[in-house]
Amino acid sequence: MLVKLDNPILLSKAVEIISELVTEVRIKVNEFGMSITAMDPANVAMIGFRLPKASFSQFETGEESLGINLDSLKQILKRGGAGSSLILEKKENMLNIQIQDRIKRNFNLSLIDIEGEEKEMPNLEFSSRVELDSVDLVASIEDCGVVADACSFIIQDGKFIIEAKGLNSARSEFSGDEAKIQAENCKSRYSLEYLQKFIKGSKLSEKTILNFANDHPLKMDIKTQHMGLSFILAPRVETDD
Amino acid sequence: MLVKLDNPILLSKAVEIISELVTEVRIKVNEFGMSITAMDPANVAMIGFRLPKASFSQFETGEESLGINLDSLKQILKRGGAGSSLILEKKENMLNIQIQDRIKRNFNLSLIDIEGEEKEMPNLEFSSRVELDSVDLVASIEDCGVVADACSFIIQDGKFIIEAKGLNSARSEFSGDEAKIQAENCKSRYSLEYLQKFIKGSKLSEKTILNFANDHPLKMDIKTQHMGLSFILAPRVETDD
Amino acid sequence: MLVKLDNPILLSKAVEIISELVTEVRIKVNEFGMSITAMDPANVAMIGFRLPKASFSQFETGEESLGINLDSLKQILKRGGAGSSLILEKKENMLNIQIQDRIKRNFNLSLIDIEGEEKEMPNLEFSSRVELDSVDLVASIEDCGVVADACSFIIQDGKFIIEAKGLNSARSEFSGDEAKIQAENCKSRYSLEYLQKFIKGSKLSEKTILNFANDHPLKMDIKTQHMGLSFILAPRVETDD
Repeated sequence: MLVKLDNPILLSKAVEIISELVTEVRIKVNEFGMSITAMDPANVAMIGFRLPKASFSQFETGEESLGINLDSLKQILKRGGAGSSLILEKKENMLNIQIQDRIKRNFNLSLIDIEGEEKEMPNLEFSSRVELDSVDLVASIEDCGVVADACSFIIQDGKFIIEAKGLNSARSEFSGDEAKIQAENCKSRYSLEYLQKFIKGSKLSEKTILNFANDHPLKMDIKTQHMGLSFILAPRVETDD
Repeated sequence: MLVKLDNPILLSKAVEIISELVTEVRIKVNEFGMSITAMDPANVAMIGFRLPKASFSQFETGEESLGINLDSLKQILKRGGAGSSLILEKKENMLNIQIQDRIKRNFNLSLIDIEGEEKEMPNLEFSSRVELDSVDLVASIEDCGVVADACSFIIQDGKFIIEAKGLNSARSEFSGDEAKIQAENCKSRYSLEYLQKFIKGSKLSEKTILNFANDHPLKMDIKTQHMGLSFILAPRVETDD
Repeated sequence: MLVKLDNPILLSKAVEIISELVTEVRIKVNEFGMSITAMDPANVAMIGFRLPKASFSQFETGEESLGINLDSLKQILKRGGAGSSLILEKKENMLNIQIQDRIKRNFNLSLIDIEGEEKEMPNLEFSSRVELDSVDLVASIEDCGVVADACSFIIQDGKFIIEAKGLNSARSEFSGDEAKIQAENCKSRYSLEYLQKFIKGSKLSEKTILNFANDHPLKMDIKTQHMGLSFILAPRVETDD
């Protein structure tokens, strides 16, 4: 296996975001490209990351599944500068990472065994789909973080509302002018701790797509020409709400 | 009560400064504008903040006294961006805070009961008045913070001197060229911990006015076209100085 | 003694770097200029700093040896701005430091007694000399810091290699195109904790010069037109490597 990325910043940022949710993952490399699918240790959230073959300037590989400590990988990827390319090559039980810069810089990362079965992103059905500007979603989630540790995603009469209530409360309202809303009336609560981690991914793309339903998991999709990042988050179903 | 600020950054910065000295305040709103007067828990310092009616683009209110947790208010005001307007509206036992941005964002802040009587800034007499560039005052106070935890404000033969002495010492001297000095010879010591908090207010205006006298409280005034911020600080009278 | 520096930033940065290795030093001032020579408390590293007489705009002094707490000096030097000049004057048992700015700012720093004999940089012989771009050395050392706490400097067939091995590994290779290499084959290991402190000095000059030999101390030299900074570091000779 030998793959080359001429603009490794997307990979570097994605790894940084994923590393906040899980510490060890299997990186799969096959004819479609590179992908990571992982569930967080609390079984509350899943992450799927996909870097299609076309995003690589060189791509020679069979089917690989690389057990990786994400924190180590993150530290190494951070060492690349703005203009540097990245070559990833599997060598026996190591992943060789070459940063192509003015000088030859090489890292070897030990491959590790990952316990448990491979995960796949589940196929879920949703009653509501909202596509909105990432910058607005980020602002709304951070607003909610000021007053509470969970927020509700609400569809009401064609409007999309993000609302958090503690001692104090925060609320954002999106009409059809500010978001593409294809949705039925519904309401579901989600943990802000997770959402605040997910929105770091939103910053990678102008738009974010939310899929949810009444007291149902959330699926959040961030797509660019060169990568896809998806999050699934279990709802917080509470009786006192 | 409904008031609107088109440039809420002054309020946001003032609340940030005041929140370092007190945690809960009464915000008074009446025909003159909005004001806060508070004493710090150690009874060493007082703060007065005034935002005149003319600073608001909309101002409909009777006489109000709103009990507010400053830390919560600070967090909410920080959520406003550079170009956003702010509407504050009292609704029953809540203060509704609307950030007017691309999307509708709303916060509700619980009003609280504040114990103790309302404070007013005392009328003090001073023998010395110094008006100087805020940037110079900030530099001098920070200089002193490097060597000690208190400094002296000294008037000597028409010069204004700020001096701190520990194992090491720091000293700044202002003549009539660098400051407007209307003063009698005197000397008074003040806590640098408090002064370092006050000078964050100095950064809001080009000039800062100091009023003091021999072993007497300090009054520090920062004025802009749109707001006034005043601090009073008890002197440190020590026998070993 | 009275000396004046019109661009005190080099002194300020050097003192900051040295203060990470030692807390108290003798600053020598004589007809050649100003110099500091010190050994770190663990006896693993030495630092030599030299500011020649020509770097000063005013230089009136006999032979002086000033015992200084570097942390205090560092804090005071930081108070100077970009355009300010610095006058250092010995007065009895104090060093008076004047920051020439819009206003007169003065610090007095207590001189202290330094225990132990004066150190001098030793004369060592080396088999290898490498002159390279500081930015490349900084990147290589920081690469190594990601994977281990020591790295090897290796000369192999005319190439200079910096390599660290832990569970993961990092390696940079310099050929004659990227560095001036006058060297025999050799290998020596050094502590990354120290190297990471030294490379803050490298940032002061475009080029850094490394002198070393097989299992031998390292000498690192950073020179600009106005100052010289040298570090000596004992090798880590380990049996399990």
